Amino acid sequence: MQTKVDLNADLGEGFGAWTMGEDEAMLAVVSSANVACGFHAGDPLVMWRTCELAKAHGVAVGAHPSFLDLWGFGRRPIQGERPEDIMRHCVYQIGALQAVAAAVGHRVTHVKPHGSLGNMAAEDDGLAMAVAEATSLCGRDLVLVAMPGSALERAGERKGLRVAREVFADRAYDDRGMLVSRKLPGAVLHDAEEAARRILRMLEDQAITSQSGNKVPARIDTICVHGDNPAAVAMARAVRSAIERAGVTIRPFHEWLA
Amino acid sequence: MQTKVDLNADLGEGFGAWTMGEDEAMLAVVSSANVACGFHAGDPLVMWRTCELAKAHGVAVGAHPSFLDLWGFGRRPIQGERPEDIMRHCVYQIGALQAVAAAVGHRVTHVKPHGSLGNMAAEDDGLAMAVAEATSLCGRDLVLVAMPGSALERAGERKGLRVAREVFADRAYDDRGMLVSRKLPGAVLHDAEEAARRILRMLEDQAITSQSGNKVPARIDTICVHGDNPAAVAMARAVRSAIERAGVTIRPFHEWLA
Amino acid sequence: MQTKVDLNADLGEGFGAWTMGEDEAMLAVVSSANVACGFHAGDPLVMWRTCELAKAHGVAVGAHPSFLDLWGFGRRPIQGERPEDIMRHCVYQIGALQAVAAAVGHRVTHVKPHGSLGNMAAEDDGLAMAVAEATSLCGRDLVLVAMPGSALERAGERKGLRVAREVFADRAYDDRGMLVSRKLPGAVLHDAEEAARRILRMLEDQAITSQSGNKVPARIDTICVHGDNPAAVAMARAVRSAIERAGVTIRPFHEWLA
Amino acid sequence: MQTKVDLNADLGEGFGAWTMGEDEAMLAVVSSANVACGFHAGDPLVMWRTCELAKAHGVAVGAHPSFLDLWGFGRRPIQGERPEDIMRHCVYQIGALQAVAAAVGHRVTHVKPHGSLGNMAAEDDGLAMAVAEATSLCGRDLVLVAMPGSALERAGERKGLRVAREVFADRAYDDRGMLVSRKLPGAVLHDAEEAARRILRMLEDQAITSQSGNKVPARIDTICVHGDNPAAVAMARAVRSAIERAGVTIRPFHEWLA
Repeated sequence: MQTKVDLNADLGEGFGAWTMGEDEAMLAVVSSANVACGFHAGDPLVMWRTCELAKAHGVAVGAHPSFLDLWGFGRRPIQGERPEDIMRHCVYQIGALQAVAAAVGHRVTHVKPHGSLGNMAAEDDGLAMAVAEATSLCGRDLVLVAMPGSALERAGERKGLRVAREVFADRAYDDRGMLVSRKLPGAVLHDAEEAARRILRMLEDQAITSQSGNKVPARIDTICVHGDNPAAVAMARAVRSAIERAGVTIRPFHEWLA
Repeated sequence: MQTKVDLNADLGEGFGAWTMGEDEAMLAVVSSANVACGFHAGDPLVMWRTCELAKAHGVAVGAHPSFLDLWGFGRRPIQGERPEDIMRHCVYQIGALQAVAAAVGHRVTHVKPHGSLGNMAAEDDGLAMAVAEATSLCGRDLVLVAMPGSALERAGERKGLRVAREVFADRAYDDRGMLVSRKLPGAVLHDAEEAARRILRMLEDQAITSQSGNKVPARIDTICVHGDNPAAVAMARAVRSAIERAGVTIRPFHEWLA
Repeated sequence: MQTKVDLNADLGEGFGAWTMGEDEAMLAVVSSANVACGFHAGDPLVMWRTCELAKAHGVAVGAHPSFLDLWGFGRRPIQGERPEDIMRHCVYQIGALQAVAAAVGHRVTHVKPHGSLGNMAAEDDGLAMAVAEATSLCGRDLVLVAMPGSALERAGERKGLRVAREVFADRAYDDRGMLVSRKLPGAVLHDAEEAARRILRMLEDQAITSQSGNKVPARIDTICVHGDNPAAVAMARAVRSAIERAGVTIRPFHEWLA
Repeated sequence: MQTKVDLNADLGEGFGAWTMGEDEAMLAVVSSANVACGFHAGDPLVMWRTCELAKAHGVAVGAHPSFLDLWGFGRRPIQGERPEDIMRHCVYQIGALQAVAAAVGHRVTHVKPHGSLGNMAAEDDGLAMAVAEATSLCGRDLVLVAMPGSALERAGERKGLRVAREVFADRAYDDRGMLVSRKLPGAVLHDAEEAARRILRMLEDQAITSQSGNKVPARIDTICVHGDNPAAVAMARAVRSAIERAGVTIRPFHEWLA
């Protein structure tokens, strides 16, 4: 079995007077935080505090750029955006976070596109290259987080970036190793212990385990967990415990990824 | 008379489908551009294009951070903002522009606060230090643009930043060397040739010339001109011509400021 | 003692993916809801749901217009807004809520300015008249909610509007019957039973009771309670219980205010 | 030939400090104005001024609701919006404009969806019904503007609304009477006189004339013209002149539409 893995979560998703998620609790669980950069959530104060807390917890921070869509929380699929425009939107967001992180003595070490941009960049080569190019422009050593087999993974490799392959602790996979649509039954796992067992099996097998038990070989560098509510935090903790009990070290991927 | 001076203007103030000002014309006139960073105007596409054009014209770019107030164009005086919050807002904006500028092969070399933030930071020591600290955090070599005698000038000096002293080509000054309120008659100059002559006199005297003819000694590193409309562009051109005819070289202050 | 009083709270303060406050719990406590209209919080979906729920609970709805300041949640004191502009901003917000309320079979029966606009309209005659005029333009029968002795109360009377006099269940008053600044000790009451007893005394005395025990005669038509957190909800329930035990009927002021 | 027709244009598309289009010029040309309601453009001040000017020119005003997308000017195709949500967004926007129009002594008499919402509601029955239902909720006598043969036309009829059939003065049509995609050559007409002649022919034939000369019978109640730039204004004037010379009266459709 592999000796190291990363645990990541989306954090810093408040805005102004609004808060979201259990950030403090999650910072004790994950090794990497994907920090909202103001386009779907996050503002300079939230970003600052999140970077400070991440640094204090030894958690790596990454930019979590999004379509410009505050009301829709970056979840609305916006068609027809030109890749060069999205690239510029991502450069802006990554740069803003880089400055904030540097100001608190931390630094941005990865990029993971958020919501609809993430979903679309997993399938659309143009958008995937836009995200990869923005990442590369902001730092040749930034790690791009992508699903194994996705357009984004290919784009990151083509740009010569280090790519961290990600699986989701709470999402079911089909026999090709792709996410089962949320509209289908069983797409989301709710049992923390089951999720922990499944992730451990994936790490042992170096393969994505599908709903039907199929194994799709895949390098697994980071596991996405959520902190939206107490149940999600409990699942994240269960996943972490299981991994640690199995003797796998949880560390930010930017430290060990080749 | 001094041998070098800078000419600056606020550019890149469009947003989405909206445009503002005569940016292309102004880039042929000024040596430094203050680029809106998305809080009062500007978006990643406008910023990108402005940085590209500035680079092509050999014009230096600076960040033009603002209160977060798109509808009010950063002109609404917002009371009670905590200096540490404004500092974080400025770090975000400067960092975003730094990434965009770097992506097009240019770089940010100065910071000048916009609108109400600029007005308030000229008088309020807390806000002035917030802007100076944000500038320093984003780059020890960034030049801070401030009015002679302002709180911002003092804050920049206290932070050890290079400070470029600025006069306005189209604004009247009182006998203390301070701007005459826009509410008073004669506060804004409309005659291009008169403005050009007045600026030349200031450069010769190394002093701000007041409405009444008083001279307040002041170093003048940069002259602010506007490009809001054709008449403003004409005044900017007249100022440039007069300066050049007098044998003063117009170059970005970051190149020659001690 | 008076036979009727209203209990009001600010509701519908979510935006997009963000929620705020315990709206469902509060709708079982209050008789009037002040609904955010999109400028500091609220969006068409939140407003729709809030109006539907209010109707189902027999709770009256009012518009809660604000300065245009989503990030600042309408709490930033914005200086220099022209009263005629604020009047137009309020007309827009009230009209939007009127249409939403009508669409769900409910209707807007009052207006109460939010946050900084509310604070400033309590003292500034120009802003107070702006709010009162907007209210009048949107409906001659709309009730304006104002603090006894405020500029807003006077403006409402001058416009010929019905004015509902409001006291706050959790705020201390000074000997002139004005709110004690939040910056001073004891400005906010935290003990639910104490708050309930104090409000009851005010209703009995038809007077605002100050911190020092002074009584400032004032008509009390509505009592503002909060639902930001479980403790606030508990206080709101305690106030309601105390009032009901005293035999005072809790009904929306628009039903009984002369 | 028909005796009456309406000329409409999108107006009030500024926002804050930004202006757009030649509104004053266009108000002397059109009989109906589609007024932006704040979601893609427009703000309460712009809406107020536009309604005042429209009233002064005897021009009818209609709401021009959009997806919530200020940066994208409502032109970004946002997928997956639930019809019931879009219905609520439209109710909010129509209601806001109704209040503003009433406040200046005018009134909203029609609704025409903007940009991507308009394009998508022309083809998608769910979105079309959302717009029609919002219109109906805001006023049973509001006229819905729709292209002949569109989903929106059908939805308006199904809701029992009066529907104004619209053709575009500057857009080419295919042999089914549908708009030629802007991506294809010849999709947009630039010659003012040619556009005027073509529109006159359509009014004479009561049919849409395609690029190839095919005639698709269609009632034509209103003709959309643009005011984005001086050339567009010139075309609008040419269209108006040609119609008047032909003896057709230009009046707002809400006055004469059955």
